[in-house]
Amino acid sequence: MPSNYLNFRNSVPWVLLLLETLFLVRSYFLFLRFDGLDSLLSSYPEFQDVNHMVIFGFGFFLMVLRRYGFSSTGFNLLIIVLGVQCSVLVEDLLVFFYLEANEGILKSIAKALISMTAVAISTGAVLGKTNLLQLIVMTLVELIVFCVSRWINRRYLEVGDHLSLMHVYLFGAYFGLAATSCFPEPSPRLDKNRSTPKSDLFSMLGSVFLWVFWPSFNSLLAQSRSQAVLNTYFALAVSAVTAFMLSALTSKDGKFRMTHIHSAVLAGGVTISFTAQMISHPWIAMILGLLGSAITVLGSHCLQRCLNPPLKIHDTSGVHFTFGLPAVLGALAQVVLLVIREWTNSSSLGYLVLLHVGAFCQTISLALITGFITGFILNTRLLKVIPVSKYFEDQFYWEVSLNVKL
Amino acid sequence: MPSNYLNFRNSVPWVLLLLETLFLVRSYFLFLRFDGLDSLLSSYPEFQDVNHMVIFGFGFFLMVLRRYGFSSTGFNLLIIVLGVQCSVLVEDLLVFFYLEANEGILKSIAKALISMTAVAISTGAVLGKTNLLQLIVMTLVELIVFCVSRWINRRYLEVGDHLSLMHVYLFGAYFGLAATSCFPEPSPRLDKNRSTPKSDLFSMLGSVFLWVFWPSFNSLLAQSRSQAVLNTYFALAVSAVTAFMLSALTSKDGKFRMTHIHSAVLAGGVTISFTAQMISHPWIAMILGLLGSAITVLGSHCLQRCLNPPLKIHDTSGVHFTFGLPAVLGALAQVVLLVIREWTNSSSLGYLVLLHVGAFCQTISLALITGFITGFILNTRLLKVIPVSKYFEDQFYWEVSLNVKL
Amino acid sequence: MPSNYLNFRNSVPWVLLLLETLFLVRSYFLFLRFDGLDSLLSSYPEFQDVNHMVIFGFGFFLMVLRRYGFSSTGFNLLIIVLGVQCSVLVEDLLVFFYLEANEGILKSIAKALISMTAVAISTGAVLGKTNLLQLIVMTLVELIVFCVSRWINRRYLEVGDHLSLMHVYLFGAYFGLAATSCFPEPSPRLDKNRSTPKSDLFSMLGSVFLWVFWPSFNSLLAQSRSQAVLNTYFALAVSAVTAFMLSALTSKDGKFRMTHIHSAVLAGGVTISFTAQMISHPWIAMILGLLGSAITVLGSHCLQRCLNPPLKIHDTSGVHFTFGLPAVLGALAQVVLLVIREWTNSSSLGYLVLLHVGAFCQTISLALITGFITGFILNTRLLKVIPVSKYFEDQFYWEVSLNVKL
Repeated sequence: MPSNYLNFRNSVPWVLLLLETLFLVRSYFLFLRFDGLDSLLSSYPEFQDVNHMVIFGFGFFLMVLRRYGFSSTGFNLLIIVLGVQCSVLVEDLLVFFYLEANEGILKSIAKALISMTAVAISTGAVLGKTNLLQLIVMTLVELIVFCVSRWINRRYLEVGDHLSLMHVYLFGAYFGLAATSCFPEPSPRLDKNRSTPKSDLFSMLGSVFLWVFWPSFNSLLAQSRSQAVLNTYFALAVSAVTAFMLSALTSKDGKFRMTHIHSAVLAGGVTISFTAQMISHPWIAMILGLLGSAITVLGSHCLQRCLNPPLKIHDTSGVHFTFGLPAVLGALAQVVLLVIREWTNSSSLGYLVLLHVGAFCQTISLALITGFITGFILNTRLLKVIPVSKYFEDQFYWEVSLNVKL
Repeated sequence: MPSNYLNFRNSVPWVLLLLETLFLVRSYFLFLRFDGLDSLLSSYPEFQDVNHMVIFGFGFFLMVLRRYGFSSTGFNLLIIVLGVQCSVLVEDLLVFFYLEANEGILKSIAKALISMTAVAISTGAVLGKTNLLQLIVMTLVELIVFCVSRWINRRYLEVGDHLSLMHVYLFGAYFGLAATSCFPEPSPRLDKNRSTPKSDLFSMLGSVFLWVFWPSFNSLLAQSRSQAVLNTYFALAVSAVTAFMLSALTSKDGKFRMTHIHSAVLAGGVTISFTAQMISHPWIAMILGLLGSAITVLGSHCLQRCLNPPLKIHDTSGVHFTFGLPAVLGALAQVVLLVIREWTNSSSLGYLVLLHVGAFCQTISLALITGFITGFILNTRLLKVIPVSKYFEDQFYWEVSLNVKL
Repeated sequence: MPSNYLNFRNSVPWVLLLLETLFLVRSYFLFLRFDGLDSLLSSYPEFQDVNHMVIFGFGFFLMVLRRYGFSSTGFNLLIIVLGVQCSVLVEDLLVFFYLEANEGILKSIAKALISMTAVAISTGAVLGKTNLLQLIVMTLVELIVFCVSRWINRRYLEVGDHLSLMHVYLFGAYFGLAATSCFPEPSPRLDKNRSTPKSDLFSMLGSVFLWVFWPSFNSLLAQSRSQAVLNTYFALAVSAVTAFMLSALTSKDGKFRMTHIHSAVLAGGVTISFTAQMISHPWIAMILGLLGSAITVLGSHCLQRCLNPPLKIHDTSGVHFTFGLPAVLGALAQVVLLVIREWTNSSSLGYLVLLHVGAFCQTISLALITGFITGFILNTRLLKVIPVSKYFEDQFYWEVSLNVKL
């Protein structure tokens, strides 16, 4: 074990210092945006919900591995605070160069938190296989690319600001999948990448947190917020019921599988994200929740058996079926609902459909391409790739007193 | 072990599907109630508190058994989302047939969440002894009966809307107790129904959650909300102190018992529930908190030694002394406070007392009778009763990789 | 083991009863303050955040010891509800005798919760070494002294109400340190006062909770609340990044140490507390967050090696470097910022600096002196000092069924 290979003292701290210096210089030189602060406090409780959800919820949601609890929560916190600062910086630069409207700093942070969900999701796909240096590089690249993708969507494809943010699940899942396909596959006999009842329980805790706060997340920047809240709530409720229904139907002996439950209860929230503010009948939201949950449970069987082994993709916490597939379904549902609503108005229908499909294809292809490139870069010698045998180990990064598994 | 006996694949999923179809059809045919949405967002933070409390708090509060962690949290989530949908449906039907006032959908969901607390409490009494099919049947029956009980209280006994909801603790506890008395008693030598330090800690986590959010719960639909918040806060504070005081006094060696603490800290919130919005002196709230906590700790000793063994009642998580006794005390306190306040106005006093006593008797007797009937139905062959030796086991319902106790 | 020595049945319950009687009598005789209740509900969500943070966050933050989980959460809850009631009583007396302005009861409770943070911090220093009786005495003494210290600051040193509350970290840390220096040191070979990965994880959970809710805490009673929220958020973000940076730089092999992380991520919130509402440039907040985190990580090395052993101070959960040093830095920063801002206005500058330095010196010296006296009193025979060999044991206070370590 070459000690130089393991030691991050010469890399991680200096990268963090460099980034922080950059953020500091930015906030020193760029204009101050402590304006419009009075209106800030009216949406503070919802902002707190999202803050709580992203940091606490994802931190514990990702705690599925038996020996990776410290890294799951700790690195999630680090990545998110880094990303939020970076995202505020990128937004500032956009305001500065492209004359985007300045919307006040709380809205910037709220958008940054939502954007960071993409990184939290991608982290789930490469969980346990990246060192912290790789994670930081991935965070920065992904955030900037997502920002560019949103900018293209808004500028050329007439996607609204809120809707462009809702592509976050789609982008995060496929970016993470493309990146993880570049990593060497862990040995199938390895047991470190399995969960224990204890880690499943913590993960369930995170999942319930995400479930409770999802309506706040989907509605934070929506125009008709109360509609977004209610539709998300109904979709989540139905997807929780469907998760139990299909888990019993598809697993051996009719028992429930924890992986199904803690993925599929959230599927409704992902599926409804694109359409939450435009659906005016709760039963449509409910059907979307049902379909989202179904695609998650069925997808978890198909992907793990048919798709992942030939493509050699190892998706640690199953982001493909938890976030990817429901998001694809949601984008499809958006187009279908648009066609139904605008059926009479056939002149502009084709154009509108084209725009929506275009935004979807642009997002997913940019995610896949840049994800693949990022995965390739992450596996270069420069970034101190960790050996496959050391995957999924807290001890590699943390001073752990005893070798106790979670 | 006859495999047909254990396998829920042919029952649970289809029941869930049937129910979901029903809910879908209901929301398709019945009128849409996305109205009054603007006023919704003003009470959204408190609504979130209650949502958080019911799903997260009760999920972890019920995690007292060493091998039943998955089922405690998972089934609680399922039962609550099912129940909320069912409750909204029942409310819709009431609006449709009996010309009740339509109050907007967020208020319906809030009421549904509060009603579901009755089911969460009853679940605590039969925890570990029912399979999921039995739980679902119990949820539906209990919700409908509670809705009927509330309707009788409002219609014939002049109980206000908010107050009729506050009977939820009383109803839930005695319904659960009556139901659990129909189940065969587990062997006293069994150790699966004991807690471990770890499961106690999770349960304490849930208890602290409930403690923090209880003022939101008791005030969500109250008229004088700030008064309800403050009185509940004071009652909870005093009951937490009293819990420690009496636990040390009554247990061996003057040590604290975790069961006392995590039941009795909540007793104040239950006791004050009927009177929180009418008490105008904090010291009355404090005395009620003290009495509630005292009755819980003393009740836990008396019931477990004197009442439960002869009646062959096995109350898994002690809902009788945690919710039942403090609720009885609270109903009594309500009558006493009413008598004191209306003493001068002797003409209507007798009538008012009669109404309050009537509402109490109606609620508790309906709970006991229907609970007993439900318990009887649950133990018929049809619902795949689980054998006593398989009580309190996650492995019976979940694919658990390793036999690790919580 | 003399059983009389261990048994708290004859002391703790009666002390609690006495205190509760006192609180009851107070709220009966003193005037009622259910006034101004309408404005209460507007700040209810933030109040709930602080309530949640103090009870849940500190309860789990303090769960660093392997066999002390029950006591950490349970006693924290008890101490805080006792303290809040006591603090409301003291405030009432101040209003009654010194003609302080009456501000309504919710504001009293909010101030009481913030004051209780001092006790929660001091508890961290003596964690595991005090029995419950000692803790209660410490709580009461500390609260009253802190109230006196705030009164002196407000009356003679022109410190505003909000700012006088923000001295809570400084006071709590140094009071706790002075008190813990009077306790006999545990044997260095003892392993009960070390953490396990599991207890570290719970402690991290508490830490993330505190991190998320800190902006609400620092802004609850501030005048320019949105500025306080944003500055605290930025300071916390930078200090989280710096914590990881310096932990890797200073520890062996460039690994992260959990103690560093869960102390230093909070340092920004402590450092910024004095100045959060007056800083108008986010980069200043960011630099303060960086310095706060740096002083925490470096302090944790220096103190544990150089300062604590010769002074025979055993600071169980490291409050000196988690809260003490960042608070000193924050007080210093306040003076520096004041000098820069008022540079041109040299007439009043000297006077203002004198006032600030005076408030700092008064707070810290009062904390040290009374903390030392309290520590001395706590170790008298009367309060049933626990033997050093029984430190850090849940079993000493709780009926624990099995000897399972956290």
